[in-house]
Amino acid sequence: MPKLILVRHGQSQWNLENRFTGWWDVDLTDQGVAEAVAAGALLKDKDVLPSRAFTSLQTRAIKTLHLALEAAGRLWIPETKDWRLNERHYGGLTGLDKQETREKHGDEQVHIWRRSFDVPPPPLEAGSAYDLASDPRYAGIPIPNTESLKLTIERVLPYWESAILPVLASGETVIISAHGNSLRALVKHLSGISDEDITGLEIPTGQPIIYEFDDAMVPGERYYLKDA
Amino acid sequence: MPKLILVRHGQSQWNLENRFTGWWDVDLTDQGVAEAVAAGALLKDKDVLPSRAFTSLQTRAIKTLHLALEAAGRLWIPETKDWRLNERHYGGLTGLDKQETREKHGDEQVHIWRRSFDVPPPPLEAGSAYDLASDPRYAGIPIPNTESLKLTIERVLPYWESAILPVLASGETVIISAHGNSLRALVKHLSGISDEDITGLEIPTGQPIIYEFDDAMVPGERYYLKDA
Repeated sequence: MPKLILVRHGQSQWNLENRFTGWWDVDLTDQGVAEAVAAGALLKDKDVLPSRAFTSLQTRAIKTLHLALEAAGRLWIPETKDWRLNERHYGGLTGLDKQETREKHGDEQVHIWRRSFDVPPPPLEAGSAYDLASDPRYAGIPIPNTESLKLTIERVLPYWESAILPVLASGETVIISAHGNSLRALVKHLSGISDEDITGLEIPTGQPIIYEFDDAMVPGERYYLKDA
Repeated sequence: MPKLILVRHGQSQWNLENRFTGWWDVDLTDQGVAEAVAAGALLKDKDVLPSRAFTSLQTRAIKTLHLALEAAGRLWIPETKDWRLNERHYGGLTGLDKQETREKHGDEQVHIWRRSFDVPPPPLEAGSAYDLASDPRYAGIPIPNTESLKLTIERVLPYWESAILPVLASGETVIISAHGNSLRALVKHLSGISDEDITGLEIPTGQPIIYEFDDAMVPGERYYLKDA
């Protein structure tokens, strides 16, 4: 029975500082490192051992994957990195302290940007310190300048369908190490969650979420591995 | 001009203990970790930035790669792991302290096993604690039970030709993080070193070796990046 393991990266420096991160590349904190190692130790303890890995192009997700795989004794499995698993692009909010943003734009507007399904934040301005146009990791990639959750889903799901699902269907146990919103996109699809409800669903950091698939590749109920 | 970067993994626990390691999976020491980080920092300092990575299925090479890529700001590049880049399999010598082996088999015999081109050590005995038959990382792989350098070359070079050279020829800067003998195999081929001379050539740990290729994919003289 194919199994899918979803892991949101451990705490990042900007999670800690309460800043909008999106596509900006920040590192894990010491706590984030510990969360990633604990996630891998749990996989080993519960004998849920991935045989194929997918992650984003962002350091915090890649390091979470590597730390978890090492703790699980699985550092040697094939891994694929793709920008389609990146975090939602927060546009002009990137780099802002969330409290400052609220003071500037008002609680209600920030809540809409963070929690509405299809309203993207204002675009990242050209010439911003957070412009990624010259980052070689995104060469040849259609870098967004802002994304709603809906737009995030529109690049995550085609990748899921074309690159990940076939691997899972071939019998592999797949781990995806990614981000709050790229994982929301997958959970919305796999658990059939409505546009309204998905934006309020929190994916905790470093907690492996499991889906088991039947022969027709229909996913069962998702559960936290720690509760299994 | 395509560039190839070869890095031998940093010091491992069994390098430190002077034991024959081969395909057995041992971790880096703290010194080995520091060597890997320094290798990556040197790549960044010299602006020799890999765009594609290859490594073995062994923890010490994979971790060396990850630590070096992180230090170089290149953790996001695609990486491929393959058993053909594994260390030479030391057969029945695996796990033995090198001094004990010399006392048991005699200096001359050990020297022959370590330094002859085509004399493999005695095979690993069935039921040995170092038998890898049940290791899932080698499922479906023709695990050797001993290898000479010649036999090592016979699995490294076809992989070089079929998997790595085409990537290099497409213009990528390729890094290979591997082992003393799988790298000897490549250096012998690329620098045209004789069967007699190659066994005495030492590849230092954590020191990036560079080959630059011309338009006909003929490699120039190899050099250490630290000297560039």
